[in-house]
Amino acid sequence: MSTKKVLGIDPGTGICGFGVVSFTTHKQPHMVTAGVITTPAHTPLADRLFDIYESLNQIIDETHPDEVAIEKLFFNQNITTGITVAEARGVCILVARQRDLPIYEYTPLQIKMTMTGYGRAKKKDMQEAVRVYLNMKEVVKPDDAADALAAAITHALSTRIQYRD
Amino acid sequence: MSTKKVLGIDPGTGICGFGVVSFTTHKQPHMVTAGVITTPAHTPLADRLFDIYESLNQIIDETHPDEVAIEKLFFNQNITTGITVAEARGVCILVARQRDLPIYEYTPLQIKMTMTGYGRAKKKDMQEAVRVYLNMKEVVKPDDAADALAAAITHALSTRIQYRD
Repeated sequence: MSTKKVLGIDPGTGICGFGVVSFTTHKQPHMVTAGVITTPAHTPLADRLFDIYESLNQIIDETHPDEVAIEKLFFNQNITTGITVAEARGVCILVARQRDLPIYEYTPLQIKMTMTGYGRAKKKDMQEAVRVYLNMKEVVKPDDAADALAAAITHALSTRIQYRD
Repeated sequence: MSTKKVLGIDPGTGICGFGVVSFTTHKQPHMVTAGVITTPAHTPLADRLFDIYESLNQIIDETHPDEVAIEKLFFNQNITTGITVAEARGVCILVARQRDLPIYEYTPLQIKMTMTGYGRAKKKDMQEAVRVYLNMKEVVKPDDAADALAAAITHALSTRIQYRD
């Protein structure tokens, strides 16, 4: 029996979702933790990125993940948001690398297809898919936390030979 | 007589320009150092961001800047490049914040206007403006290093009360 914990990250400067899922051979995967790192608007970008850096390190200290799965950017209409997400993503990837954690990237499309079989799945569908997969009673909120768990689950399913018999 | 050193950064994942300029009251500003951090293409993004993080820390260790000036992104045609630049920029801003260095952001337009009075200045014009301002014999190459110096100079000129009598 082997266990692996995957830290999923849905990057963002204002709200950065995180979620750790534990996968054990022959067992139901379960959520270790999930939540969001929020940084106050109208504070300097440097402070916000620093907060994300510190918080993510703390989450790793507390949960000891083996691998990291992070959402890749896609180019939506709001390019200004895209830029700030990329800045936060750079910091998240740096943290994983500094902690010697292998990091894997998945596009929102890959995550949606894996979780629901449907590339245009809505936030609610994703939350529900995560709930079912992790055998939970309630959906995880906010959706950024659920998306982070979805990234972790997508990674596990994409590399399932490592986790499943 | 007071001296301030400004570290200018032209962020990028493949090539990240840096340049330190020393400003002393009543004296000609001069270049302390300038160059580029390059990271090999086709290597994992995490390794590249880690290299930038380490190199930038080393440059700060060696040059002891007082403040940091960094180029702000503008949205050019190549959005994929924009995203990777933003990822590197996030890491650069984090480093400055971790080292307790005040960080100032300037758009390419602000830098071009300040250096040449012309918003569409070309790379050659910028290199020449930097050369003249720093009283150097040769232009600084590559242009990413010159752009980093230009960011540092723009910062000094924009806040000149602090540097000049």
